[in-house]
Amino acid sequence: MTTWHIANGYRFAGVHSGLRANEPGRLDLALIVSDRPAVAAGVFTQNRVCAAPVHVCRERLPTKEARGIVVCSGNANACTGQQGLDDARHMTALAGQALGVDAKQMLVCSTGVIGRLLPMAVMESGIPAAAKDVATGPEALERAARAILTTDTRVKVRTRQLVINGQQVNITGFAKGAAMIGPNMATMLAFVLTDAPLDVADLQALAPIAADRSFNCISVEGHTSTNDSLIFLANGDGPKLKGDALRAFNEAAIGVCEELARDMASDAEGASHLITIHVEGTRNDAEARTIAKTIAESALVKTAFFGADPNWGRIVSAAGYSGIAFDESQLSLRLGDFLLYEKGTPLPFDPSAVSAFMKANRELTIRLIFTLGAGRCTFYTCDLTYDYVRLNADYTT
Amino acid sequence: MTTWHIANGYRFAGVHSGLRANEPGRLDLALIVSDRPAVAAGVFTQNRVCAAPVHVCRERLPTKEARGIVVCSGNANACTGQQGLDDARHMTALAGQALGVDAKQMLVCSTGVIGRLLPMAVMESGIPAAAKDVATGPEALERAARAILTTDTRVKVRTRQLVINGQQVNITGFAKGAAMIGPNMATMLAFVLTDAPLDVADLQALAPIAADRSFNCISVEGHTSTNDSLIFLANGDGPKLKGDALRAFNEAAIGVCEELARDMASDAEGASHLITIHVEGTRNDAEARTIAKTIAESALVKTAFFGADPNWGRIVSAAGYSGIAFDESQLSLRLGDFLLYEKGTPLPFDPSAVSAFMKANRELTIRLIFTLGAGRCTFYTCDLTYDYVRLNADYTT
Repeated sequence: MTTWHIANGYRFAGVHSGLRANEPGRLDLALIVSDRPAVAAGVFTQNRVCAAPVHVCRERLPTKEARGIVVCSGNANACTGQQGLDDARHMTALAGQALGVDAKQMLVCSTGVIGRLLPMAVMESGIPAAAKDVATGPEALERAARAILTTDTRVKVRTRQLVINGQQVNITGFAKGAAMIGPNMATMLAFVLTDAPLDVADLQALAPIAADRSFNCISVEGHTSTNDSLIFLANGDGPKLKGDALRAFNEAAIGVCEELARDMASDAEGASHLITIHVEGTRNDAEARTIAKTIAESALVKTAFFGADPNWGRIVSAAGYSGIAFDESQLSLRLGDFLLYEKGTPLPFDPSAVSAFMKANRELTIRLIFTLGAGRCTFYTCDLTYDYVRLNADYTT
Repeated sequence: MTTWHIANGYRFAGVHSGLRANEPGRLDLALIVSDRPAVAAGVFTQNRVCAAPVHVCRERLPTKEARGIVVCSGNANACTGQQGLDDARHMTALAGQALGVDAKQMLVCSTGVIGRLLPMAVMESGIPAAAKDVATGPEALERAARAILTTDTRVKVRTRQLVINGQQVNITGFAKGAAMIGPNMATMLAFVLTDAPLDVADLQALAPIAADRSFNCISVEGHTSTNDSLIFLANGDGPKLKGDALRAFNEAAIGVCEELARDMASDAEGASHLITIHVEGTRNDAEARTIAKTIAESALVKTAFFGADPNWGRIVSAAGYSGIAFDESQLSLRLGDFLLYEKGTPLPFDPSAVSAFMKANRELTIRLIFTLGAGRCTFYTCDLTYDYVRLNADYTT
């Protein structure tokens, strides 16, 4: 374990509540507790069908009085109607009661299967147990970070420490997400906690920018989930960060989100390659992102990477149906160091050499160079493998 | 073989030219010849990156003087620059010369790998050989229909015979397409030939409507190809069809296209289920199509069908990120006869019974019922299987 910088004034728990009935001992319930009221803000899924806990968080954020977050994994509490909303609120009531704070000071997240009512008896015993278990330090953080996982193969924690105005500031992020990941977030939960003193309006302004520069630049298969949540807590005392100090904090917090996003793409379900897509030379950044996203979500591009098949025509043709106007003569393409297509003309290359390069490198970079302007985007995705199909073919049964 | 109604005045050939160097004997070059000048019209890919033969067909259509179409499979002649354009035109010159007609009376299509120059020496021997081989009748048609295939597992021919104005009219359609199939067509080629007398303007008007009602309502993975082509030829003599007669012809021609489109979805690469998505009760048909297309292209929905997993939350959540506004209380969902979700509330169901139903039926229907209006759409897709990944992981190598 690399050294984690853990923000002061936070405690964590990760317990087995029994929500995943057929997985004895698996951690499935996490608590994040701030020892004092924290400023909190968040951004959430753009899906029209959004989960009950997302509704509850939206009602309560932004706030200056947050005391923590209760998170369950294995059940999304989405498409569950009024009962689901009641259940999400009841989760915060149980957590508030156990921690001695107001229910409304608690936030709630869920991730897992859609369309099943939460077994509330499990929550009624699990949440007090988690509250008893909260602790400071890396082991408690690790257990919380583990308890939020679904099909992820590893814990995703990224932290930063910096000195602002002569004071040490810690930023502690952790996240889950390995599929149903599309831009505009997806089944991902991410929590970024800091001991810096932040104004609620500044944290609220940071949240969408951080999402846009990180989680909105990854795609596993483009399926935007019902439960996406990125929540920031800042519990620092003292004068709020302003000006350069605020900018320094924001850059560091965005950096944590970028690292968590890249961790997600890298750990995507069944992935055998992490693919970085650089698009440059479009009229503006939005065009570059549209093209990158279209390529990232092409099953044909993704299967070709799985097979180490340098079938670059699929990349160029995906750019072609992205909806962005260009002529072929305005596009060149590199895969790693191989220039395969230059201003509309295919270049001779040795397919077996490129294929060997693709096989040998888990991390691969595509670069699309347009001659239209100064727009650019860097986007992350992964390949589409047998294991992705296997993992998703029998998720609920 | 069911009885095919073959339009009068057409001859066909399908030969092995050697374009697929590593597949001895495989048919890879087709010729369609009209014995007299035919009225011709077509619709083509909306991809910005479009193949050389698409450019050539667009230049030449619509026309009243078409004499045929030369089609090669195994090489898309796309992303091939000026050389590719020269090669596509040269294919029509070779066909014209061999058939004794003007090069400009010939149309050309290609399908296969993108970004490779055509081996023109192969075309120079293959096209005259095909021209020598043209014949009437079902065997010749079958060979032409086979020669255009790529990863398709079967020939796709659909025909109709009807009596219009007391005269027998035949409509003969054949097509290829098994992947890189997204709405707005995809790597699909379809040819619809008739001996009815049609006005060029009427055929030109029919082409986009027929595509919209058929090939634009299927999706394998949403990757719009560089080569999509739907071409109509009508070589009938006599007064052109008008009014009710024209409407009867158009409906029959659209019916042929619908059957070919359904054949494509059913034969999609590696598919083990044909999935019909009915969306109804949206504000208009376009909304219904957007929702259906989003569901059809969700890898998570498609893998769940492969696994016979009644994970219906993925369907509802795909509708939710389609961009169409609705509240959950305005949506109900049926899978086959099972009502799983009613006006925003999940209904109890027996997962093992639904899973058994999904396993037992190769053809499955999802029905999304909204309460917003009278819009509707029927859309076809297939599941995402190990075989799809296998087939696409090593297509060029």
